[in-house]
Amino acid sequence: MDIAIPIFAGLTALDAIGPYEVLSRLPDAHVQFLAAEPGPKRTENGMLALTADRGLDAIRTPEVIVMPGGYGTRALMHDEHMLAWVRAAHERSRWTASVCTGALVLGAAGILDGLEATTHWAFMDALGRLGAIPVKRRVVEQGKVITAAGVSSGIDMALLLAARIAGEDMARAIQLAIEYDPEPPFDSGSTEKAPPEILELARERS
Amino acid sequence: MDIAIPIFAGLTALDAIGPYEVLSRLPDAHVQFLAAEPGPKRTENGMLALTADRGLDAIRTPEVIVMPGGYGTRALMHDEHMLAWVRAAHERSRWTASVCTGALVLGAAGILDGLEATTHWAFMDALGRLGAIPVKRRVVEQGKVITAAGVSSGIDMALLLAARIAGEDMARAIQLAIEYDPEPPFDSGSTEKAPPEILELARERS
Repeated sequence: MDIAIPIFAGLTALDAIGPYEVLSRLPDAHVQFLAAEPGPKRTENGMLALTADRGLDAIRTPEVIVMPGGYGTRALMHDEHMLAWVRAAHERSRWTASVCTGALVLGAAGILDGLEATTHWAFMDALGRLGAIPVKRRVVEQGKVITAAGVSSGIDMALLLAARIAGEDMARAIQLAIEYDPEPPFDSGSTEKAPPEILELARERS
Repeated sequence: MDIAIPIFAGLTALDAIGPYEVLSRLPDAHVQFLAAEPGPKRTENGMLALTADRGLDAIRTPEVIVMPGGYGTRALMHDEHMLAWVRAAHERSRWTASVCTGALVLGAAGILDGLEATTHWAFMDALGRLGAIPVKRRVVEQGKVITAAGVSSGIDMALLLAARIAGEDMARAIQLAIEYDPEPPFDSGSTEKAPPEILELARERS
């Protein structure tokens, strides 16, 4: 089972690595990191490079697509090569997913037209302008299209996707394998829970 | 503030990327991925390469050390270059942290002697044999040494560390920036919560 994760300059690493860490543990899963130009891709802060091993055109019909986000999506939303690949791959995929502002790329490709979808809380308006119906939930499933909220939400999304693909027992085993029994030391992970001064600080760090 | 994350062949990507995604958002943070030999380091399943930009010897006195885990730690625990670096860096660090089996490397370096510490649930005995007092908690803080449980626990650990370094407001803002408001679709993230058949399946996928 080919699972394609397109990456690009200016991605948010955890958007990609959360789902990778879950989905790579599915039986017969082959996660592949792709880019228009293969090679190292730096994250938005420049501190880390992930390698895209293959070009987009090497994997045209993945069973699963996971589009991560990051500031690099601003350019990616206008990259006709990427948008054409996403559109064509989505036609034959079993599942098309996004994390964070990866949803904006799916939206720019026309995949979210009229569908409920979610993204990072700071980009919900932008998602609406791309034809989606923005919904403030952690994971939104619409047929074969699954969108997740900001950055860390890709782990929750991928566990749901793992259950859809290989059954709940397998998804639960993967949850245990990665010891995903979260205990955040604070409770400020959503805009509903954080006071205004934290929200302001968070905007600068998003 | 230099934050050093040593990486190596056979690492678990999320062990490193969870803390990176949190700590890189601290003011003036400079997260650096290091290795004995700089260059791409493949994860334990071979599906992904992260780049170590610099050699261990380029950063000898980081303020923060985060040691990730993965099957590659089996070799790393006997790598005298790495152990000597860890020992020397720890002498002057403000914080020395590990995620998952990264704790075994700290243990092999002698840093956990007589300290309470944690690691992935499948490796608690191994941790005890290295001189630590294994404790089944998600994050264990002992002076400047902080160890975290399996894979995903590095996010919780790093938020605690962020609060110690830059205050609780900053840590909460980072939590919101990465929208860390976990909603696992299942409740099998610890050995106490998962039934025996899920535990068995998880051992194969750890």
